[in-house]
Amino acid sequence: MIIQLQPSIATADKEAIIAKSKALGYKTTEVKTQEHVYLVGIGKKEFDIRLLGHMAGIADIHRVSDDYKLVSRKWKVDRTHLDLGDGVIIGDGTLSIMAGPCSIENEAQVQQTIDHLVAQGVRIMRGGVFKPRSSPYAFRGLGVDGLKMWHTLARKAGMKIISEVMQVSQIAEMHDYVDVFQVGARNTQNFNLLDELGRVDKAVMIKRGISGTIEELLYSAEYVFAAGNEKLLLCERGIRTYERASRNTLDINAIPILKEKTHLPVIADPSHGIGIREYVEPVALAAVMAGADGVIYETHQKPEEAASDGQQTLDFKESEKLIRKLRKVYELRENF
Amino acid sequence: MIIQLQPSIATADKEAIIAKSKALGYKTTEVKTQEHVYLVGIGKKEFDIRLLGHMAGIADIHRVSDDYKLVSRKWKVDRTHLDLGDGVIIGDGTLSIMAGPCSIENEAQVQQTIDHLVAQGVRIMRGGVFKPRSSPYAFRGLGVDGLKMWHTLARKAGMKIISEVMQVSQIAEMHDYVDVFQVGARNTQNFNLLDELGRVDKAVMIKRGISGTIEELLYSAEYVFAAGNEKLLLCERGIRTYERASRNTLDINAIPILKEKTHLPVIADPSHGIGIREYVEPVALAAVMAGADGVIYETHQKPEEAASDGQQTLDFKESEKLIRKLRKVYELRENF
Amino acid sequence: MIIQLQPSIATADKEAIIAKSKALGYKTTEVKTQEHVYLVGIGKKEFDIRLLGHMAGIADIHRVSDDYKLVSRKWKVDRTHLDLGDGVIIGDGTLSIMAGPCSIENEAQVQQTIDHLVAQGVRIMRGGVFKPRSSPYAFRGLGVDGLKMWHTLARKAGMKIISEVMQVSQIAEMHDYVDVFQVGARNTQNFNLLDELGRVDKAVMIKRGISGTIEELLYSAEYVFAAGNEKLLLCERGIRTYERASRNTLDINAIPILKEKTHLPVIADPSHGIGIREYVEPVALAAVMAGADGVIYETHQKPEEAASDGQQTLDFKESEKLIRKLRKVYELRENF
Amino acid sequence: MIIQLQPSIATADKEAIIAKSKALGYKTTEVKTQEHVYLVGIGKKEFDIRLLGHMAGIADIHRVSDDYKLVSRKWKVDRTHLDLGDGVIIGDGTLSIMAGPCSIENEAQVQQTIDHLVAQGVRIMRGGVFKPRSSPYAFRGLGVDGLKMWHTLARKAGMKIISEVMQVSQIAEMHDYVDVFQVGARNTQNFNLLDELGRVDKAVMIKRGISGTIEELLYSAEYVFAAGNEKLLLCERGIRTYERASRNTLDINAIPILKEKTHLPVIADPSHGIGIREYVEPVALAAVMAGADGVIYETHQKPEEAASDGQQTLDFKESEKLIRKLRKVYELRENF
Repeated sequence: MIIQLQPSIATADKEAIIAKSKALGYKTTEVKTQEHVYLVGIGKKEFDIRLLGHMAGIADIHRVSDDYKLVSRKWKVDRTHLDLGDGVIIGDGTLSIMAGPCSIENEAQVQQTIDHLVAQGVRIMRGGVFKPRSSPYAFRGLGVDGLKMWHTLARKAGMKIISEVMQVSQIAEMHDYVDVFQVGARNTQNFNLLDELGRVDKAVMIKRGISGTIEELLYSAEYVFAAGNEKLLLCERGIRTYERASRNTLDINAIPILKEKTHLPVIADPSHGIGIREYVEPVALAAVMAGADGVIYETHQKPEEAASDGQQTLDFKESEKLIRKLRKVYELRENF
Repeated sequence: MIIQLQPSIATADKEAIIAKSKALGYKTTEVKTQEHVYLVGIGKKEFDIRLLGHMAGIADIHRVSDDYKLVSRKWKVDRTHLDLGDGVIIGDGTLSIMAGPCSIENEAQVQQTIDHLVAQGVRIMRGGVFKPRSSPYAFRGLGVDGLKMWHTLARKAGMKIISEVMQVSQIAEMHDYVDVFQVGARNTQNFNLLDELGRVDKAVMIKRGISGTIEELLYSAEYVFAAGNEKLLLCERGIRTYERASRNTLDINAIPILKEKTHLPVIADPSHGIGIREYVEPVALAAVMAGADGVIYETHQKPEEAASDGQQTLDFKESEKLIRKLRKVYELRENF
Repeated sequence: MIIQLQPSIATADKEAIIAKSKALGYKTTEVKTQEHVYLVGIGKKEFDIRLLGHMAGIADIHRVSDDYKLVSRKWKVDRTHLDLGDGVIIGDGTLSIMAGPCSIENEAQVQQTIDHLVAQGVRIMRGGVFKPRSSPYAFRGLGVDGLKMWHTLARKAGMKIISEVMQVSQIAEMHDYVDVFQVGARNTQNFNLLDELGRVDKAVMIKRGISGTIEELLYSAEYVFAAGNEKLLLCERGIRTYERASRNTLDINAIPILKEKTHLPVIADPSHGIGIREYVEPVALAAVMAGADGVIYETHQKPEEAASDGQQTLDFKESEKLIRKLRKVYELRENF
Repeated sequence: MIIQLQPSIATADKEAIIAKSKALGYKTTEVKTQEHVYLVGIGKKEFDIRLLGHMAGIADIHRVSDDYKLVSRKWKVDRTHLDLGDGVIIGDGTLSIMAGPCSIENEAQVQQTIDHLVAQGVRIMRGGVFKPRSSPYAFRGLGVDGLKMWHTLARKAGMKIISEVMQVSQIAEMHDYVDVFQVGARNTQNFNLLDELGRVDKAVMIKRGISGTIEELLYSAEYVFAAGNEKLLLCERGIRTYERASRNTLDINAIPILKEKTHLPVIADPSHGIGIREYVEPVALAAVMAGADGVIYETHQKPEEAASDGQQTLDFKESEKLIRKLRKVYELRENF
């Protein structure tokens, strides 16, 4: 059960609602986001929702049978869209394209990527400055200095930034230089990180865990929302299966299922989803056809020289072709 | 190594080629299909292919580094297309749509399905008469009598038939009444069945195993080809994963990978691939966008009353809408 | 619901029971095994079982809530044991050891294996004469001639034979020369084969499918039982997972779960379960400790020269050590 | 390549070794643990190790072909054992038993558990005070206050404490009250957490990821070691598969494989490994038989009232029986 409170609700009224909910068998959690105040009620008993609905200070009240509540589409029919400023919007009847290198490497690389994206009308650039690597001896990214350099160049070009945050202490360091915090597949269930991102006034994109279920992804989003941040995106990036012909198995099914279950925008990552450069295009197009609100993929001026993930990275010519096709697919999908 | 022989090759010449191959470290298997005669050479040594190439009776010779040979695209650049007669062709720059019920139930059902498909210009009807069922107490299909009834009605309407064969003894029983034999996901590695289907002059569609790899699917096709039948189709129908929100996980990656690795047509089965009626459409469209040569899906006049698989079966209205969209997606894909 | 009928039941009495069951909402299937006659009732309604229990001709009646019925332990508290003759019994408070090569290769190999097993007091020898191989160009086994040769040598030594049957037509060919038919992991859901093995008077060991569930394995056994053959064994042989450090993942959990759910003996196959020779021993010992009634593993006089599966095959010295330890583990388990 | 340096090595000598390694094509990382100083060399070229071996300041030098280095058994033949003080040692020819509740709940519970364990001669108690929960609305543990209470009671009884740390900031908070930090399955690849635990003078047990590979587990341990902490334990706790009859699939194969690949002790967690109370015992016994150095399992005075994981928790009577059997199995294994 989700009870949306009026912004001006009196404390006594709120307490009365909490007490009444308790009497009806529901434990409530107060959720204050930057936009609204909610009481999320967890309980099992069926009751006539009107017993609560008439109480003072309630703006709206919904039954939500899903175990995740705030991210469920059962109470919020209007789909969430995120406004990153400067006319860059995710999820509102537009196709979001986010592209860039796996790792931020140097100024020349960043500028070349920005030039490529600007020429294609792409407004969001991806790139890693903190890289999660299986081996402690591998390249771990340029860190915050790299991010600042990138941010300076990106702002000049009106480009928005999405970049992975790996731990709580990085949130503050990165905060002023990113537009979207990305939670990587190895951190999908890093609940402390999710909690902290709930206290941030920036958008957060959560990637599905390496072998995470769709339900777990929704629960992870619920963590961020319940801690106060409604600006959420979900990302399908492939799951781990027994198949060895591809790096991961992009779960195309997850796209329409997520679109049905949540009001949050759904992004697909074909680069990690298949992991092989020559197949990124068909998988990206398929994901949009299946209903994705956007794609995030890796591109680099010279993939064979990239510091990481070169084998799944498009060069700019391939990227240009992909962007052109993505837009045609999206247009067809919206105009069937 | 694949050596295509001239049809008129003299026995002595053939023996000379076999002997020479052996001397070069290659064990050869003679493959006589209804169309050509090949020697498939298995070995490891590198050698100058011209040592063989000049010999009498050789039409063509190819190195194939894949472990599967005859189904590899490495020697056959032209994609295979199958002519089912009456202008029904699979894989030749057309989108193949195969639809129909999970199980053939009765004459009325068959006729209504045919009427629906004819109205949509669909020429291939699917349906099961032998049903593989986990439980021995479940409905196992109408058998050959059902197939004969279906065949009579289908022929009147110019409709082709694809139906699953479960064991060797059914091949002869079904032969005159089907246009395409389907090998189900539980029989992908039923090697005796594959061998026997290699001796048949009808097309064969092999479904990927329930947790089969892409490579295993290609090997299974190699069995049929090596036993003499080149009329082959492959079908991606979803794999078994840990995810419980869908029945199977349609492996969208498999579609471009198969199209790269083999010259055989690739069909997608979104009904089994996701297993939930309301999501069949987006998954089907995505599969075509990813490069599938066709789709096979379940439709029934009243899905909620279907003898099996009703939960993943479209009604005729949904089917009609899907067909319309599929064609638009295919048209876009072919004209990017 | 399982109704065990008296052997001498009158036809009219049986019909009365079927009619009464139907009136109570149950569809019955008559199952005649070589040992008993049952009516298996499938239905959903709860009713007082005494409404049937008093009827003439009923020997016993049980409610079984599992979807599989005859193989469930819910109606048969006594565990099944199989008597192969000559004092060789499986599942009756003894540890069954079955060992031998992956493939039967020649007389010398068979004789050496028999000598090794006899010296260790092992009474059941495994070996393949029909080999399921992914590639059509690989060694497919010696066939029935190899089996006959093996049978002659085995009988002289009092050795029982277990060997894989791959298709219906092989059942008759193999029948006189095997003591246990093995159904391989690729045929676990070859329902026609299971049906036919239900009509045979020999024991049948069903291996779990390559990615089969525990429940599917029980259903496959139900097929054989329902077709008339109660002489059944189940085999855990590892499942397919994402892990690449081993060939398969032996599901140790499956052993106690199967022992709880069914009255049939449970055998473990550590050779396929891990697929690496040096680790076969610890996995075999663990499986017995977890409750297995026996193990089946691969041994060969010279594993590095074996026609197939050499990488997971023990030499005779390793085999001897394993046997000795297996018996100690079993003794401990039975005497905690 | 691992170069163990003499503790007293001169800076100039160290620099000379680094320079020479670089000239030979190896990038070195200096690793200072609380016990030794190493240079870990990453490179591909083969060279005569004696070219380095004679240099001043080198204590020992080893080639390690594995991609993980410091945790590999290729350079350290002696197995690691951890001394927790007061005669509590892990991994040195003794069986380590760690037991206790999923969550620390209150003083009475802790005291009862301690009494139970003391009576059985168990010296390490497990318990969670920070609980990772899929849902933000679930019980998340008593936090550091609970840990302090537990620590007070445990110290009186000479009991050691293992407890999960979920984020970097908790390390300092927990440090004085735990003997072993546990890294949970959702944090196996939380590389920042691993880095920080490398700077701690307490033992660390790393659980395998929910769908982590054996290799990834070894890499995660390499992180901690490379950051300075050699006091490491690994834990197999089941992986996520398609099977639904158990919560996870305990990978019994992983135990002998890990024992072969690393010098670190290997612990098994049968509670999470199967997730069903009645089957914890056979799986625990099997894990020890397969070579585990210890087990960690959940026990509670009243499992049905436990705050979390009750369905997989043993009561004290079951726990007592398990401990008795575990010791017999271990004794048999060590004395075959």
